[in-house]
Amino acid sequence: MRGDDLTIGFDADDTLWHNETIFENVHLRYRALLGRFHDAATVDQRLFATEMRNLERYGYGVKGFMLSAIETAIELSDGQISAEEIRLIIALGQDMLAHPVELLDGVLDVVGPLAHAHRLLLITKGDLRDQERKLSLSGLAGLFRAVEIVSEKDAPTYDRILRRHGVAPQRFLMVGNSLKSDILPVLELGGGAAHVPYHLTWAAERVDHVPTAEGRFFQLRSLRELPDLLSAMKAST
Amino acid sequence: MRGDDLTIGFDADDTLWHNETIFENVHLRYRALLGRFHDAATVDQRLFATEMRNLERYGYGVKGFMLSAIETAIELSDGQISAEEIRLIIALGQDMLAHPVELLDGVLDVVGPLAHAHRLLLITKGDLRDQERKLSLSGLAGLFRAVEIVSEKDAPTYDRILRRHGVAPQRFLMVGNSLKSDILPVLELGGGAAHVPYHLTWAAERVDHVPTAEGRFFQLRSLRELPDLLSAMKAST
Repeated sequence: MRGDDLTIGFDADDTLWHNETIFENVHLRYRALLGRFHDAATVDQRLFATEMRNLERYGYGVKGFMLSAIETAIELSDGQISAEEIRLIIALGQDMLAHPVELLDGVLDVVGPLAHAHRLLLITKGDLRDQERKLSLSGLAGLFRAVEIVSEKDAPTYDRILRRHGVAPQRFLMVGNSLKSDILPVLELGGGAAHVPYHLTWAAERVDHVPTAEGRFFQLRSLRELPDLLSAMKAST
Repeated sequence: MRGDDLTIGFDADDTLWHNETIFENVHLRYRALLGRFHDAATVDQRLFATEMRNLERYGYGVKGFMLSAIETAIELSDGQISAEEIRLIIALGQDMLAHPVELLDGVLDVVGPLAHAHRLLLITKGDLRDQERKLSLSGLAGLFRAVEIVSEKDAPTYDRILRRHGVAPQRFLMVGNSLKSDILPVLELGGGAAHVPYHLTWAAERVDHVPTAEGRFFQLRSLRELPDLLSAMKAST
């Protein structure tokens, strides 16, 4: 894989800005709200089960989370939860949808300069309006040639995006924190992928095997290591 | 505006398949659920006000509707609504997200043949996953060169879509039921637009003036009139 003339795809949540920390904080408050009915582990487990059951109809994003959280609260309380408490769950979700965007360390130093030398794509899943809001608040929107907000980040989706932009997989590097959504499907297509882990990973994004793809899979500790990786890729041309 | 070499954009909800009738049915059941607290007009009015208040954060689609319906029920009942009744509101929404897709009259006869002679785009707003589900169930997906699910159908959005596909506004005709979302923004860009009204219009899509754009705005009674319009446009070249 050569480093010159690469198109670079960036994931957004937990790659460019904090997201799972915001969810984690909401989970804490949600557990407290349901604490008189069940222990934290049961609350987490049942909420996750509801989210997975609803994923096909709701897709990813905060609105689906809110609806699943309300549904789980009714179930776990055996219908004893009050309307006022459900209003609090809605308020928790609305706070997430109004949360400031906090860029991860290194983003401003790294992504801006890369936009001069490469075509950058933003590829993210979630609610349309919320992802657009965050991108707008991030101040990064002008750096990306195109923004793709998709319902699932699997190989067919990446294939469709690469075809739309006329990019061969061999000339594409995806950068993201999720092995499941950012790395494995791109490697499957023959593209390159750089994994930059975030300190929290949502259970639905966890995978139990490490990708193998000689010369196409790269493990970084921070986005700050990305320019060196690209230089090394160019030097090995 | 010439009829040959036209790219034709289609709206989806209430242009290709029924949508507002499904919402209307849910509104009926929602009014009944809140009937012991308020009359139907008050329920409708407050629900609409909540939806408009939340539009910026939720965007369009069923999930946002569900959240606004729950919020309104709590408000209108002064917190007296039961968890079981809120569960029923969630079930109403989930029914919508599993509702079969019912094509409008004429769609199969008209859209399929057009796909041979023109490049067709589907341009719709709403929840990503739900719109993709409906398109897939409609059996029409293969007819469209591209599908654009957007957060708002305004002039900048149409401009972005037309640029992305390399289509000049003068070579674009948008077909849809909403004057606000399908017709006015396209006319503003210099494109053509054919309005095919649906028998119900959501209050948020209503506009109080009729578009004027000599030779670019067309009022149809049914999608079945579209082929004749295109023939007339070609003949006038």
